[in-house]
Amino acid sequence: MKILVVNDDGIHSRGIASLAKALEEIAEVFVVAPLTEQSAVGHSITMKIPLRVHRYYKGDEFFGYAVEGTPADCVKMGIRNILKYNPDLVVSGINNGSNAAINLIYSGTVSAAREAAIMNIPSFAVSVDSHNVDDFTYAGKVAKKFAELVAKEGLPKGTLLNINVPDLPESEIKGIKVTRQSMTRWDDSYEERIDPYGRKYYWLQGTMQEEEGEDSSYDYFAVKEGYVSVTPVHFDLTDFGAYEKYKNWNF
Amino acid sequence: MKILVVNDDGIHSRGIASLAKALEEIAEVFVVAPLTEQSAVGHSITMKIPLRVHRYYKGDEFFGYAVEGTPADCVKMGIRNILKYNPDLVVSGINNGSNAAINLIYSGTVSAAREAAIMNIPSFAVSVDSHNVDDFTYAGKVAKKFAELVAKEGLPKGTLLNINVPDLPESEIKGIKVTRQSMTRWDDSYEERIDPYGRKYYWLQGTMQEEEGEDSSYDYFAVKEGYVSVTPVHFDLTDFGAYEKYKNWNF
Repeated sequence: MKILVVNDDGIHSRGIASLAKALEEIAEVFVVAPLTEQSAVGHSITMKIPLRVHRYYKGDEFFGYAVEGTPADCVKMGIRNILKYNPDLVVSGINNGSNAAINLIYSGTVSAAREAAIMNIPSFAVSVDSHNVDDFTYAGKVAKKFAELVAKEGLPKGTLLNINVPDLPESEIKGIKVTRQSMTRWDDSYEERIDPYGRKYYWLQGTMQEEEGEDSSYDYFAVKEGYVSVTPVHFDLTDFGAYEKYKNWNF
Repeated sequence: MKILVVNDDGIHSRGIASLAKALEEIAEVFVVAPLTEQSAVGHSITMKIPLRVHRYYKGDEFFGYAVEGTPADCVKMGIRNILKYNPDLVVSGINNGSNAAINLIYSGTVSAAREAAIMNIPSFAVSVDSHNVDDFTYAGKVAKKFAELVAKEGLPKGTLLNINVPDLPESEIKGIKVTRQSMTRWDDSYEERIDPYGRKYYWLQGTMQEEEGEDSSYDYFAVKEGYVSVTPVHFDLTDFGAYEKYKNWNF
């Protein structure tokens, strides 16, 4: 099995090193990841400027290719120009921070997996629900388990998996749950500050507003309750409820 | 009616000027748009660096606020920190270039409208199917028509509209069609070039691979056939087909 590994925290991050190590137990692993952190870039792709690509070493050892671009760029570049063939699987992560609920929309990690799905390559994203993860070992095990599962069972065309892991010791994990995306979202605005030159600047800040009436069948609440959450995601954004309502309207 | 106008081509672009002008016939219009072009940034938001905001003038006349950020940033900033109340409607565009089919995924224009939908504010995006639009007048009329329609009828919670207009004289437009997102996507890779210093760089290039078996009930083909395409879009990315298939799996 050949696996392309990508992330949005950058090729230097600890999460991608843990992911590559876990998957090397079962596959040949190729790393193509952003040179610098690309959190919250969503499904951004680079078109206005060209990309640069660098061979990235850890000490004397080759680790992978670092792209001066976004996570989605890395998937396109990795498959079309570096590997030059389709890998069996693309895995994105392990991300520092949950990509459940509305974070799925903003996530570079999940968008990388989505880019693979657009290219008809099975893929999933793995994130841990903490911005200060001390140990990626259990999330690495989860990634390995799902790599084996996807290799065996496949995924429907156009479907990727968004996997979110609680930041808990393995012994406290309650299990794995297939979930749907929570509608929990940020209530945010910008904090105004003044720079040393007297000019205003603005920092995004906010808190998560938990959606009422949801339970652990939704990703965000499953993770909060101690489950590994696995949400099948697709890239057909049509709102079919509204489509059925409006499709016979006479304009 | 109060309308927030945003885009991804940048506050200097002709499309946003045409949009603001068309909507001023029926509403009080506020422009908050990126200072520089932000095409294909998807639903990127700025978190690693703070934002700067500038009052933007055309000659001596105030036009709007220019944000050194993404289209989604402009919506958050415009509503939370500039207007400080919810407008009746957010309209994004008029974009140079189609946002039908897979372009919906990469689009900053549509993501701005989606950010408004996340904030429970009715919204739509308008794009013209050409990268070299000579006249935005008809697309402006379409925007005005839908602003009036949405003001009267509302939109379901969480639903936005992705409107794509053929680059044709009004007399050649066949009508308005409610559509679903086409699965037509790019087959792309990177063209390698050598810079004057002997170093490699890579330009994204590709062609659209039309999805077989689709007709004008899909956005991309509706526009090709001369219809204004209106696709209801939502931000619940759950693949419910796969969710039903997997939800009772025992891991």
